[in-house]
Amino acid sequence: MVSFEMTGRDGLARLGRLSTPHGTAVTPALMPVIHPGLQTIPPSEMKRLFGAEMVITNSYIIRSREDFRDRALREGVGRLIGWDGPVMTDSGTFQSYMYGEVEVSQPEILDFQRRIGSDLCTMLDIFSTPEAPEAKARAELEENSRRAVEASELFYGRGEERGTSTPPVKGKEDQGLVLAVQGGIFPHLRERSANDTAALECAVQAIGGVVPLMEAYRFPELVEVVLAARRALNPARPVHLFGAGHPMMFALASLMGCDLFDSSSYAKYAKDDRMMFSWGTRHLDELAHLPCSCPVCSSWTPDRLRRLPDEERTRMLAEHNLHVSFAELRRVRQAISESSLWELVEERCRGHPALLSALQALGRHADFLERFAPASRQGAFFYKGPESAFRPEVQRWTRRLLDRYTMPESAVMVCLPEAPKPYSRHYRDLVAKVQERWDARFVVASFFGPVPLELDGMYPVSQSLVPARLDPESNERIAGAMKDFSHRLRTQTSLVWEGEQSFSALEMMAPPRQVPVPDWEMLRARATCEVQFGRAAAAAIFRGKVELVLSPNTGRVRNVLVDGEHALSLRARDGLFTLRLPGAKRILPAVPSPCIRVVVDSDAAQFAVQGKNVFARFVKDCDPKLRPMDEVAVVDERDRLVACGRALLVRDEMLAFRRGMAVHVREGARTPPVADDES
Amino acid sequence: MVSFEMTGRDGLARLGRLSTPHGTAVTPALMPVIHPGLQTIPPSEMKRLFGAEMVITNSYIIRSREDFRDRALREGVGRLIGWDGPVMTDSGTFQSYMYGEVEVSQPEILDFQRRIGSDLCTMLDIFSTPEAPEAKARAELEENSRRAVEASELFYGRGEERGTSTPPVKGKEDQGLVLAVQGGIFPHLRERSANDTAALECAVQAIGGVVPLMEAYRFPELVEVVLAARRALNPARPVHLFGAGHPMMFALASLMGCDLFDSSSYAKYAKDDRMMFSWGTRHLDELAHLPCSCPVCSSWTPDRLRRLPDEERTRMLAEHNLHVSFAELRRVRQAISESSLWELVEERCRGHPALLSALQALGRHADFLERFAPASRQGAFFYKGPESAFRPEVQRWTRRLLDRYTMPESAVMVCLPEAPKPYSRHYRDLVAKVQERWDARFVVASFFGPVPLELDGMYPVSQSLVPARLDPESNERIAGAMKDFSHRLRTQTSLVWEGEQSFSALEMMAPPRQVPVPDWEMLRARATCEVQFGRAAAAAIFRGKVELVLSPNTGRVRNVLVDGEHALSLRARDGLFTLRLPGAKRILPAVPSPCIRVVVDSDAAQFAVQGKNVFARFVKDCDPKLRPMDEVAVVDERDRLVACGRALLVRDEMLAFRRGMAVHVREGARTPPVADDES
Repeated sequence: MVSFEMTGRDGLARLGRLSTPHGTAVTPALMPVIHPGLQTIPPSEMKRLFGAEMVITNSYIIRSREDFRDRALREGVGRLIGWDGPVMTDSGTFQSYMYGEVEVSQPEILDFQRRIGSDLCTMLDIFSTPEAPEAKARAELEENSRRAVEASELFYGRGEERGTSTPPVKGKEDQGLVLAVQGGIFPHLRERSANDTAALECAVQAIGGVVPLMEAYRFPELVEVVLAARRALNPARPVHLFGAGHPMMFALASLMGCDLFDSSSYAKYAKDDRMMFSWGTRHLDELAHLPCSCPVCSSWTPDRLRRLPDEERTRMLAEHNLHVSFAELRRVRQAISESSLWELVEERCRGHPALLSALQALGRHADFLERFAPASRQGAFFYKGPESAFRPEVQRWTRRLLDRYTMPESAVMVCLPEAPKPYSRHYRDLVAKVQERWDARFVVASFFGPVPLELDGMYPVSQSLVPARLDPESNERIAGAMKDFSHRLRTQTSLVWEGEQSFSALEMMAPPRQVPVPDWEMLRARATCEVQFGRAAAAAIFRGKVELVLSPNTGRVRNVLVDGEHALSLRARDGLFTLRLPGAKRILPAVPSPCIRVVVDSDAAQFAVQGKNVFARFVKDCDPKLRPMDEVAVVDERDRLVACGRALLVRDEMLAFRRGMAVHVREGARTPPVADDES
Repeated sequence: MVSFEMTGRDGLARLGRLSTPHGTAVTPALMPVIHPGLQTIPPSEMKRLFGAEMVITNSYIIRSREDFRDRALREGVGRLIGWDGPVMTDSGTFQSYMYGEVEVSQPEILDFQRRIGSDLCTMLDIFSTPEAPEAKARAELEENSRRAVEASELFYGRGEERGTSTPPVKGKEDQGLVLAVQGGIFPHLRERSANDTAALECAVQAIGGVVPLMEAYRFPELVEVVLAARRALNPARPVHLFGAGHPMMFALASLMGCDLFDSSSYAKYAKDDRMMFSWGTRHLDELAHLPCSCPVCSSWTPDRLRRLPDEERTRMLAEHNLHVSFAELRRVRQAISESSLWELVEERCRGHPALLSALQALGRHADFLERFAPASRQGAFFYKGPESAFRPEVQRWTRRLLDRYTMPESAVMVCLPEAPKPYSRHYRDLVAKVQERWDARFVVASFFGPVPLELDGMYPVSQSLVPARLDPESNERIAGAMKDFSHRLRTQTSLVWEGEQSFSALEMMAPPRQVPVPDWEMLRARATCEVQFGRAAAAAIFRGKVELVLSPNTGRVRNVLVDGEHALSLRARDGLFTLRLPGAKRILPAVPSPCIRVVVDSDAAQFAVQGKNVFARFVKDCDPKLRPMDEVAVVDERDRLVACGRALLVRDEMLAFRRGMAVHVREGARTPPVADDES
């Protein structure tokens, strides 16, 4: 069987494993396009030189040449092209786009793909061009959806009664079908097409008809159609972006949730003496120096390459193009694994102003993207430019703060003229002085918006790097958010301290302290708990006798004990709590199901209770507000607490995936309490 | 003799050739630091694997170990370290910074460097740390300058009377001396130190004392001290930035006019399992994938590297670090050769917010940087972010327009809400319609500021790529520049058309045409000439019977004939004129010397008159307003026109350089007129 498992993620982007009859490929994966006749680089070397794990070839071309066809039917497509791993085949759709028509029906080409042993067989979809007006694109999409139904039925054996299906070749029952989303440049049509696709059985969901958009650098439209499709597709299946072969595209496409790419460009570009880079393209003739570290560029010069005979030069440039492409793929995988893919996309989008426009288009989907963004990450948030404000962390911070944080009566609003870094030492000292004397809480302007000072240790505020001077767009956004915040204060004693003003100026503005200095660490613990779990949950935990265990080194909260029980632990790395069983026990009665919960069936509950992880296929329900890396309580269908842990998937994913982990369980209800760790 | 020749440039950055007794190195050059005892990678492989052409080693370390010292004195430093090309030696300054003191005097260590046959021998400068207060930094700089005088006199044989100098070893008279600029973090001290350096004989000017700034990511201060020094240094000599070994720095350092870098980091980082990338650093343990295309990363995985024995792993990581460093160096060289270094710097500065702050610091030196920026380039201007506004092209456009362009009586000011692209077809069509009916000129808002429509084909306006939606900072700047422009119109009939308004709305606002439609191409020719050469020059050319030769394909100006003589040719690539002899003849009497002129001595005049290029050492004077790639008239000392061509250097450089070309001559007064070309 063809199956897909997610092994890591950063928002919609994911690391995965695609298993097929001929082997497994790590995703995001790049499938070099192999022409059965013209091989610039023999497929056998694709694995050795570049680490390719999967290739794609064209069943239509194979079928239309007798020698290819006969050999493929006799020995299989892998043997024909000289590749012993997974093979995806395309169907002739692109040929029909290029040349108007193809002389094959969908049942014929699907049957042929199965007979030649392709691991992933592609439907004969209808390619809507960007020029197609809406009515045409809609009609084409309707026909495409009819074909998708036909393909799925043919493939998964439900179509026998129509007499159109050839029974699968013996032993080939486990091949996978690729269905393609169309809809031209119209997001609502793309979404509809994706809905149709998601409703059908298939192994891979492809997004087709986008090559002309990429060729014309119409990247903002690409963003619209890909995200419209991605919204509606089945999140448990891999997504292939047809024709995305330029390394410049991989980061952006991955960020939008695409898992598979194919490249014929490496060879086509090489034939035209064009070299691909993650930052653009150059013709060999434009180069006085080879601006790349790949094995080809490290041992050749442009002049020596130019003097090579055509065939050898093409081979060298194709190698370069693949080295760069696979390196970029590794960079994307690394970025996903360290949750820095947004940063990479922001860098890559400097490659061309049209990509910058695409980044701005992404900003319009911040709400959607936020649903999948992790609640925490390993490294720091790096500011890259005004567009960094589109990132999910920024959206989320202000929203969670306004929704969940208990507003103080009054606050001193602090706008620093330069880098808003509430955690800088100089700044903290100043504030501590003020704090001692005046009866007000402090709210500091940061790149993320207002930060009540007791929250300055929380991700992402504490782990961010911004330049000394912010762009005016960000400054304006921050000022607006500060204003909103101050409007919500219950009394009108809020001040704005610009930071340039001296400390004594502040002295004149602030109301003198009338109540004792608050317990700073208690404030921090309570507020962090609120922003992380919500007000009701925090209220439930901070009821009874609350004791804080402080770190002997930093003096900061480490554990929260309530009535002698260990309810929460604070992770130093990101300033977020991990939920312990006693904490979860207190929260559950206070918030209605499925809040903060992952509901599992009784089989899984038996394992979870012993501290075993929860797999997606046992999940019955889940809090739709949960984000990846959020803390969760695992409960059974009778809402009994069975474990605590961290969510790896969001609700839609938990319900869709049949494979892979949904919750990393830290503590089962029947395991001895575990020691604190940084996990 | 050690000598330096510039072979290409982009602003202060340059491609060059540094010749030494042991060979020649292309600059910008990276010198790997070779320790005579510990060689992670044998120097012999530095050339083969990475293309290194020059290395640096430490004479202090060699001198302090008897075995090294004896062998170096006997066989030379090259043999000692196993390298047969140019070698630079450092003097122990860094050791005195690290460990407080060194047990050697400057005469001793300089003498030693000469005796071991170093190609570039470094003075024993005084390392001022960034912590040094101004008084301390000043005192240190004064001592440093005294030492520089001593070193220069010792080295170039003028110090014998003091009895401190050892006569040079036989055959070593042609070694070069490296003097170092100090001054701590104080730009005015740096400038003073650079002035002192420039006044002395030496081969290389180094900027020292900056390693702690780079280590602490204090890049904005680095920009200030490097540019302060660069302003005052001799432009004919190469500049070495001591300790700049991270590839992340090369583009920025080159943009600031540094030619030489040294790297011990490649080995130090490798020993700590740290991998360098042009976009930052990662510890091997942080990597799940190798995000790089170099030969090491293309054939290893992080796990396999981690399992290697320490020494082998260090070797592999050092190779990676050098592959990446030399690739980045090639990328910088390529960027210089295509005048896209600013774009590269803007990309690289996304690597860390402190680098973005450095980019903003560069913006404060826009006036200085503009003096060296080319008047034209091959490729397009790519917008990368709000900081793109700091680029010299942007500064220059508005300034030249306001200084040189003859303002129309009135104008329709057009602000498009989206991408200001005056040259888009839709837009041109609209304007043409308006043009026919109304008596006003059109001025369009572009990223560069106001563009009178007749100038929309000129570089850089015509060759720019900006995103659909500009950042608010740019929009504000553009709006301000449009306002300034409209205030200068002689009558108050200017309008602002927002572009969203319909064509008929405009119809109601515009004054109906009372004079005939202007000759569009004549307007274009005249205005282009004004902005390129100034108003007086344009008036001198456009006097008499002016005929335009139009391109049969585009209908645009190709040549300007005046009284039957071919005065100007318009280059299609950048919409700029090349100056022909008859044109130059008309301009010269109209503008005072040295305007638009390069004045050469009579020897050079004899060659130039025959169409030969002009070399810097024959230049007597030059227009200080000339920029690289500007058109110039070459005249002799009696102001007689001898040739026309294109300036490659600016005035200071022409007067300083003893080698290399100053003017690429296109037409000598005694050569037959040449055909138009794109050169």
